[in-house]
Amino acid sequence: MYANELFNHVIPFWTRFSPDHINGGYYTCLDRKGRIYDRDKFTWLQARQVWTYSYLYNQYESNEQWLQIAELGFRFLTTFAEEQKSGSYYFSCDEKGVPLTQPHSIYSDCFAAAGLYEYAKATASDMALRKSKRALKKYLERRARPKGIYTKSTGNRPLSSLGIPMMTAFLYQIFQEEISSASLEVEYQSLKALILNKHLCTTSGLLHEFVSIDGGIIDTFEGRLLNPGHAIEACWFLMDLAANFKDQATIRECSDLCLRMIKKGWDGKHGGIYYFLDSKGAPPQHLEWNQKLWWVQLEALVALSKILKYNPSAEAWLWFQKIHDYAWNHFRDPEYGEWYGYLTEQGNVLVPLKGGKWKGCFHLPRALHECSTALKEFGKSLENERSS
Amino acid sequence: MYANELFNHVIPFWTRFSPDHINGGYYTCLDRKGRIYDRDKFTWLQARQVWTYSYLYNQYESNEQWLQIAELGFRFLTTFAEEQKSGSYYFSCDEKGVPLTQPHSIYSDCFAAAGLYEYAKATASDMALRKSKRALKKYLERRARPKGIYTKSTGNRPLSSLGIPMMTAFLYQIFQEEISSASLEVEYQSLKALILNKHLCTTSGLLHEFVSIDGGIIDTFEGRLLNPGHAIEACWFLMDLAANFKDQATIRECSDLCLRMIKKGWDGKHGGIYYFLDSKGAPPQHLEWNQKLWWVQLEALVALSKILKYNPSAEAWLWFQKIHDYAWNHFRDPEYGEWYGYLTEQGNVLVPLKGGKWKGCFHLPRALHECSTALKEFGKSLENERSS
Repeated sequence: MYANELFNHVIPFWTRFSPDHINGGYYTCLDRKGRIYDRDKFTWLQARQVWTYSYLYNQYESNEQWLQIAELGFRFLTTFAEEQKSGSYYFSCDEKGVPLTQPHSIYSDCFAAAGLYEYAKATASDMALRKSKRALKKYLERRARPKGIYTKSTGNRPLSSLGIPMMTAFLYQIFQEEISSASLEVEYQSLKALILNKHLCTTSGLLHEFVSIDGGIIDTFEGRLLNPGHAIEACWFLMDLAANFKDQATIRECSDLCLRMIKKGWDGKHGGIYYFLDSKGAPPQHLEWNQKLWWVQLEALVALSKILKYNPSAEAWLWFQKIHDYAWNHFRDPEYGEWYGYLTEQGNVLVPLKGGKWKGCFHLPRALHECSTALKEFGKSLENERSS
Repeated sequence: MYANELFNHVIPFWTRFSPDHINGGYYTCLDRKGRIYDRDKFTWLQARQVWTYSYLYNQYESNEQWLQIAELGFRFLTTFAEEQKSGSYYFSCDEKGVPLTQPHSIYSDCFAAAGLYEYAKATASDMALRKSKRALKKYLERRARPKGIYTKSTGNRPLSSLGIPMMTAFLYQIFQEEISSASLEVEYQSLKALILNKHLCTTSGLLHEFVSIDGGIIDTFEGRLLNPGHAIEACWFLMDLAANFKDQATIRECSDLCLRMIKKGWDGKHGGIYYFLDSKGAPPQHLEWNQKLWWVQLEALVALSKILKYNPSAEAWLWFQKIHDYAWNHFRDPEYGEWYGYLTEQGNVLVPLKGGKWKGCFHLPRALHECSTALKEFGKSLENERSS
C-alpha cells in the first residue's frame, strides 16, 4: 500500500497543482484542495521537489512528465535561487525569481546539492553535476559557522547542533560515488562519533539537539531540547551509511537509540510522536511542542522499516504497526489527496494545508518509497497484507 | 479586585521567587510553583521588571523592598546587559551576566529605556536618567533598520512593521516630559499616520502587522498577518497620547479600531482572543496561531478600560466583561499565585509556566494597574461590585 499511495494519491497531487509552467519552479503553498494561497518560493522546498521527481525517475521509470517537472525546479534553482557570486542559495524568492531572503540557511545549500545531484543523475547534465558539487562544497565549508554573518550568539556558550551531522550523513549517502572510499571512511567515523557519542546523553541514552562543543549536556532551553523527529532521521541516515560499511555494531546502536527516541517521543494518551520535549520535563520553549507533525511520524516509519530491514525485532515491528496506524488514520486526506501536515496534540487538523513554507513534496513521498522498499526486503508483505 | 490581585496575588509571587540577590537581576523562568527551571536572563524581561517595580514605587507607595528589587535589575542592566561601546543591549546573558546573545533586538533597547527611566524617576539617579536617554536614542536611531546587520531580507520587498510605531508610542508616553511639546506634536502626528493610516486596511478596517513601505496591503504570509494583541496595544498607547493632546477624534478612531480587532480576534466557540490570524483566512504561518496568550487578553482589557475612561460605550463595557470573565477564569492560578501564560485553543493550560523567556513581571501587573485605575475613573466600581 505504500507504493500505491505514493503513485496514486500523493504524486498526482503535486504533479497537478504544484508546477509553475510560466516562471519555473513550484508553488508549494497549497490548501487542502490544492489551491495556491501563497506564491513565494522557498529554496528548501524547491530543491527537495527537484530531488523527489528526479529520484522517482531514477528509481522507478523514465517518466518524461516527472523529468519535465524536475527540470522546472532545476531551472529555477540555478537561474534565480543561487546567489551566483557565493554559490550559496537564497532562502526564498518571489514567484518570478526575485530573491527575497538572503542565503542565511546552510540547509538551502544542502537541499540544493541533493536535488541538483539527483537531477544530474537523471539527465547526465554536466551543469547540474557541477552546480550540485559547488553546493555540496558550500555546505561542507559553512558547517564550521552555519549561520555566518547572521550568527546572534556571542560565542560565550558555543553549541553544537545535531542538524549538521544529520544532514551531512544525508549528503554523504547521496554523494558517495563522488567521494573516495578512504575519505568516506574518515567522514563516516566522524559522523558516528558526533551522532552516537557527542550528542548522546549517557545518563538517559537520548540524543540532544544541542550540546556544548566538547559534547556536554547543558541545562538551558537549548541544551535540554529533544527533537525526536530529527534524532530519528539522524539514526536512519547513519544506519544506511553503516549498511554500506557492513558495520553491524553501528546498525544495532542506531536501532536501539532510534527505538528509545520513539518511545520517549510517543504520546501514550493520544498517539503520535511529539514535536519537541524538554529532557528534564521543564516547560518547553516551543509553543508548538505538543503538536503532531507529518514528517516526524513518517521519518519514524522510515527508520523502523530500516531497522526491520537491517536488524529486525518484534519490538520494531510492533512500533511500526502502531505508528503506521496512527499516521494513516490521522494525516491522510482520502478526499483530496496528499496528507495533512500539522495536527493538534489530540490528532485533529490544526492547519488544513497540504503544502506551505516548510511542507512540500519531500518527506511523504520519500517515506512512502523508503517504507515500500525496506518492507519488501524485510519480507513481511505489508503491501499485500494490508491492501487486501 | 484588580488592585487586590496586583498586590496580593501577583507581585508577591515575583518578589518571593524572582530576585537574584547574588548576581543581580531576576530569574524569570519560573514554573507553576515559582521554582527556577532556567537561569539565563533575557533583557526584555529584566528591563520590564525594573519598570514594573519602579512604577509601583512611583505610583503607589515608597516601598523600600520594591526599590531594592528594582535596583537589582538596574545594576544588572547597566553592568552586564548594556554593550558599553554601542549603547545597545544584549538580548540575553547568563545568570552571572556573561552576554550570550548579541544586541540584535531593537526592543531590548526599547525596554531598557523604559525601565531605566522609571527607575530614574524613583531614585533621582543621574546615571539611570543618562542611560535611559542613551537607550531611547539608540531605539529611535535603529528604527530605520531595526535588525541592522542581522537583516535577512534582501530589500526587494521592504516591509513596515507595526511593532515600531507601537513601541515608539509607548516610549513617547513615558518620556513625554523629556521632549519639547513641539517635537512631541510632530511625533504624535507621525504615529497617528502610521498606526491609523499606513497599517490600516481600508477595505476591512483592520490593522496589519506588516505593510509595504508605501502602506500597501501585500498578499503574502507576512502581509496577511493579523496580530490582534499587537494591534490592540497600539490602539491604547495611541489613545493615551491622544488624551494628552485632548484629541477626541483620534480617541474615537482608536476605540473603533480596537473594538474591530477584538471582535475579529475573538474565538466565538471557546472564548479568548487568538494569537495570530490570516486576513484572508489562508492557513496561518505560525503553528501557535490558535493559542490563547495571557498578554493578548490582558492588553484587550487595558484597551477596553481606556475606552471606558475616554469614550465609554455599552459595547465596550460588554466586551470588557466578556474578556474579564474569560481571562480570570482561565489564566489565573488560585493556588500558587500569578497567572498562566499559554493556553490551548480550548482554554486548557499548554505549558504550566509562570515565567519564561518571554513572560515575566510586566503585562499582568501593568494590566491590573491600568484596569484598576481606568475603571475607577470610568465610575463603574467593578472593584466593589465583583469582589463583594
